[in-house]
Amino acid sequence: MSENSSSNTRAKAVILLSGGLDSATCLAIAASEGYDCYCLSVDYGQRHSAELDAARRIAERQSAACHKVVQMDLRAIGGSALTDDTISVPVEETDGIPSTYVPARNTIMLSLAMGWAEVLGAGAIYAGVNAVDYSGYPDCRPEFIAAFQQLANLATKTAVEGQHISIETPLITMTKAEIISTGCRLGVDYSLTVSCYQADSRGRACGVCDSCRIRKQGFGDALMADPTAYF
Amino acid sequence: MSENSSSNTRAKAVILLSGGLDSATCLAIAASEGYDCYCLSVDYGQRHSAELDAARRIAERQSAACHKVVQMDLRAIGGSALTDDTISVPVEETDGIPSTYVPARNTIMLSLAMGWAEVLGAGAIYAGVNAVDYSGYPDCRPEFIAAFQQLANLATKTAVEGQHISIETPLITMTKAEIISTGCRLGVDYSLTVSCYQADSRGRACGVCDSCRIRKQGFGDALMADPTAYF
Repeated sequence: MSENSSSNTRAKAVILLSGGLDSATCLAIAASEGYDCYCLSVDYGQRHSAELDAARRIAERQSAACHKVVQMDLRAIGGSALTDDTISVPVEETDGIPSTYVPARNTIMLSLAMGWAEVLGAGAIYAGVNAVDYSGYPDCRPEFIAAFQQLANLATKTAVEGQHISIETPLITMTKAEIISTGCRLGVDYSLTVSCYQADSRGRACGVCDSCRIRKQGFGDALMADPTAYF
Repeated sequence: MSENSSSNTRAKAVILLSGGLDSATCLAIAASEGYDCYCLSVDYGQRHSAELDAARRIAERQSAACHKVVQMDLRAIGGSALTDDTISVPVEETDGIPSTYVPARNTIMLSLAMGWAEVLGAGAIYAGVNAVDYSGYPDCRPEFIAAFQQLANLATKTAVEGQHISIETPLITMTKAEIISTGCRLGVDYSLTVSCYQADSRGRACGVCDSCRIRKQGFGDALMADPTAYF
């Protein structure tokens, strides 16, 4: 897979691919809508680096045109259980926004995706944000995405020249069960995905963090077998 | 200098410090307005890495509370003369937006600054963007900054909790001469700053790139001696 290996006749989209269930589904949706998919993963020093291995497997299995992993050291900033080892991952439901929230993460990732979309001449960015089963993160809300779209309409050379980059969030109003049902219909192999905030090096999940609980419930509600490997 | 070394009684601001003339002036303005200044530089693989050495010297000389350099590999994305060695830096005035434009750079840097501001509890971000002598970059325009402010009002946990992060761009409508006059009044030592897009490893400037031409003209217009070392 390389940036130049795909046909030039299809429209390009940049897909933010974390390696989790949502972004794998998002990739499948973008492909089903006819895009050549350029997947972007960010190695930001996350605690659950097994996600990145999962992203590589998913991009390959789902025939992405290209998969790029960009290094960005968010541990230098910290402030989250995912980027600071002194802050623990919560294993019970908490009030308010949990400690797994990473300050400005979605803004930073959408910005990177926008930069790459501009270089590629891609007309869309797909992000698997979800405002239903989403732990209350502020940067997963529809009003945040709308504000980012406004920014994207002004931020780039491409925009000044009249070429639009559309921010697509097809999962934003779906329940986790609806996401899983959609992905299964599109052939996503969820056994490749890693959602757990503290997965081990083999990608096996804890089963008790917020992300695991929401995922497990989603498979139950969708009446699908849960292919997750737990440790 | 560390994140915890400064007094807790003064308000904090994050300053985007590239090591150039504009950001050094911006730091001096933020300090003059009473902020404890937390300087953020981004090592994005820029061609002119002498800038980062300059940023370190400026942060120290101007008594910043803290200076952090975050690694982020924009060479993985490319698309600019500053991040792709196969694209040359223009040495003559060009029509339109020049090849030194880095896709989404200001959006990415403001996003990182927003993340750090949230972790620090800072109420302001200072960025030395300028819409007058600015080479036509789309992400230096007032409407871009206004859109980023709208995004910042929605993007963070801090924002949800009612704490505002203000995006401050005190240079945005100044000419380069006005910026230089302001900085000189505030005691900025411009001999420490590096503006050149292709400075050598000792920080000496080419004198012919866009950035050098605008800077040189600025010192002339401000009737100040140009302290820049040229190679």
